[in-house]
Amino acid sequence: MSVTAPLGFRAAGVVAGIKSSDARDLALVVNDGPSRAAAGVFTRNRVKAAPVLWSQQVLAGGRVHAVVLNSGGANACTGPLGFQDTHATAEKVAGALGESAGEIAVCSTGLIGERLPMEALLSGVDLAVSQISRDGGLAAADAIRTTDTVSKISFRRGEGGYMVGGMAKGAGMLAPALATMLSVITTDADVPAEQLDAVLRRATAVTFDRLDADGCMSTNDTVLLLASGASGVTPDLAEFEQTVRAVCADLARQLLVDAEGATKAIAIEVVGAASEEDAVLVGRTVSRSNLLKCAIHGEDPNWGRVLAAVGTTDAVFEADRLNVAINGIWICRGGAAGDDRSKVDLRPRDVTITVDLSAGPHSATVHTTDLTAAYVHENSAYSS
Amino acid sequence: MSVTAPLGFRAAGVVAGIKSSDARDLALVVNDGPSRAAAGVFTRNRVKAAPVLWSQQVLAGGRVHAVVLNSGGANACTGPLGFQDTHATAEKVAGALGESAGEIAVCSTGLIGERLPMEALLSGVDLAVSQISRDGGLAAADAIRTTDTVSKISFRRGEGGYMVGGMAKGAGMLAPALATMLSVITTDADVPAEQLDAVLRRATAVTFDRLDADGCMSTNDTVLLLASGASGVTPDLAEFEQTVRAVCADLARQLLVDAEGATKAIAIEVVGAASEEDAVLVGRTVSRSNLLKCAIHGEDPNWGRVLAAVGTTDAVFEADRLNVAINGIWICRGGAAGDDRSKVDLRPRDVTITVDLSAGPHSATVHTTDLTAAYVHENSAYSS
Repeated sequence: MSVTAPLGFRAAGVVAGIKSSDARDLALVVNDGPSRAAAGVFTRNRVKAAPVLWSQQVLAGGRVHAVVLNSGGANACTGPLGFQDTHATAEKVAGALGESAGEIAVCSTGLIGERLPMEALLSGVDLAVSQISRDGGLAAADAIRTTDTVSKISFRRGEGGYMVGGMAKGAGMLAPALATMLSVITTDADVPAEQLDAVLRRATAVTFDRLDADGCMSTNDTVLLLASGASGVTPDLAEFEQTVRAVCADLARQLLVDAEGATKAIAIEVVGAASEEDAVLVGRTVSRSNLLKCAIHGEDPNWGRVLAAVGTTDAVFEADRLNVAINGIWICRGGAAGDDRSKVDLRPRDVTITVDLSAGPHSATVHTTDLTAAYVHENSAYSS
Repeated sequence: MSVTAPLGFRAAGVVAGIKSSDARDLALVVNDGPSRAAAGVFTRNRVKAAPVLWSQQVLAGGRVHAVVLNSGGANACTGPLGFQDTHATAEKVAGALGESAGEIAVCSTGLIGERLPMEALLSGVDLAVSQISRDGGLAAADAIRTTDTVSKISFRRGEGGYMVGGMAKGAGMLAPALATMLSVITTDADVPAEQLDAVLRRATAVTFDRLDADGCMSTNDTVLLLASGASGVTPDLAEFEQTVRAVCADLARQLLVDAEGATKAIAIEVVGAASEEDAVLVGRTVSRSNLLKCAIHGEDPNWGRVLAAVGTTDAVFEADRLNVAINGIWICRGGAAGDDRSKVDLRPRDVTITVDLSAGPHSATVHTTDLTAAYVHENSAYSS
């Protein structure tokens, strides 16, 4: 399923030999049309990987015939030669499909700063082209994993019978501006590129963009939305956006739960904000407090660390009007101790921290994880 | 020595019973004059502890007779009652010394959100007043420790024979805007309050303010500079500033080395910046990359994580003109791989990461630590 749940898409995931392990490391997603409308959103990091620079150009045209994705190397900070590698990859796919490279998007993920093993990668493209099929979605989702322990896939059926499917990878460098990840979302609805773009921007803004596991923004973040039109359904746009958003939210949730070393999925729910921007700012700032993330790991409802983080923002609030609940217990009221902290049950994996700024009607939720010794071990022992 | 190295100061450090352990937890520093000129800088966190709110008022007058400091509780997020506790503490010291509370500064450090045990604290004030002496500096430095494993003290002799001495505590919540800490610096030079203020602001801006161990800004940061004038020396102001800065830098270095769980002292040296602000911004952003801090802990010269952090700033730079050296080896040149990364020796405790933005003549250095499992353990097991 995943990206092949909608009609008009074929996919493959193969072992190209880019990774030193024998794991799958190259995925291909092909849109057989009749439409090739596409949209993309990319990392806001100013240090962008070669495949991001390439795919931004491709998506500017609003049409994508295929996406080739590799794990085992980010092809970031690799200079002009790295860009040539991406270009050669797109040309190889285009040649195998009998198409123009200008409609081939490229995504890479893995270690920054090293060139890709192009011989292995290009052979892998041949292998993938030979294997693309209507049931290749799972293999493709498997092939884009790095430190992900499981594949992330999702699909939803929309009104009138069209489908939206998707796959994603995350794990490390999970931060703002798309949460350091690759994701390909497909649909057999018939939606033109311009509307796909608007839908994708709005959907990612409230899903992937509100995931901040470790505050580190990647050089490679890419989310693509491809529409084949093969269902013949022209959906209501608002309903279509809801369906795309549901798939994005589902994938984001899977990324969060599988973030490196995480034992808790923490929702920072900011209410009473003077603006949505304030709510997101406060949520993001709280989600980046290492001290708070350690406390939640230790199941300590340390609301003082929440207030200390809120206090570093320029959001509208008065310190003596801040309220904080952890898992529903209002342990901080009016900027001071509230209900008994021993009432807070932090044993479940899911933790909700509610911050009431008492400054307005707006709200937003940012999702993060706890900070664990396992995160440290994974990121000190593994060059990724 | 420490705060009692300069003439005109007495100090004490006693066991008041604020901490549950039998460790010293209350310190008193008294300026016997003839001058009582003083200056202070405080946390920029908008959630400020009661003693910060109080001491800001005291310092507005430019005169401090005594400073009372406690560990074992931050008296932050404690509401109007917490402020009354601070006020009562100052009144108690003032009464014991036969003075006005308006010249008594108060500092607190420890867990946020809980009231202080005032009975123990006020008895401790009596005990401290009875013990203040010319050699009480070490006991005072010991009494302000929280998770600090060692006391931090420093002193320098200035031209003409005046002295500058200081003590500090740090360990957790070590971040910008004074690096989450308390510090009292004393001098027997004769310098009026207005000039002390200018000197202290400039000295802390390039020392404590450029320390960022864990990105978490405290509610209690306070640095006080008290001048007794007892040496009779009126120093050259530029020379005096250098001496104060040397003491601040020495204390900041001690805070860094003793930061919670740290095994590496990392200097992020940003050169080639278009402005000093850009250099500090880039240094601070790199110092907050959990992924990079984990990599340095694992002695992995992962320069890609440096570039990924630089790319999230709005400093002036071009991605393909960035150069990065780790411990002197330029492993990234022109935004791509440079010298062989195996040449980088990351075994020493001190690590220097040089980021060349190739955008101008300005530079700055921000100091941070690695991220370790010990930091996670300390901050998940200990409510602080």
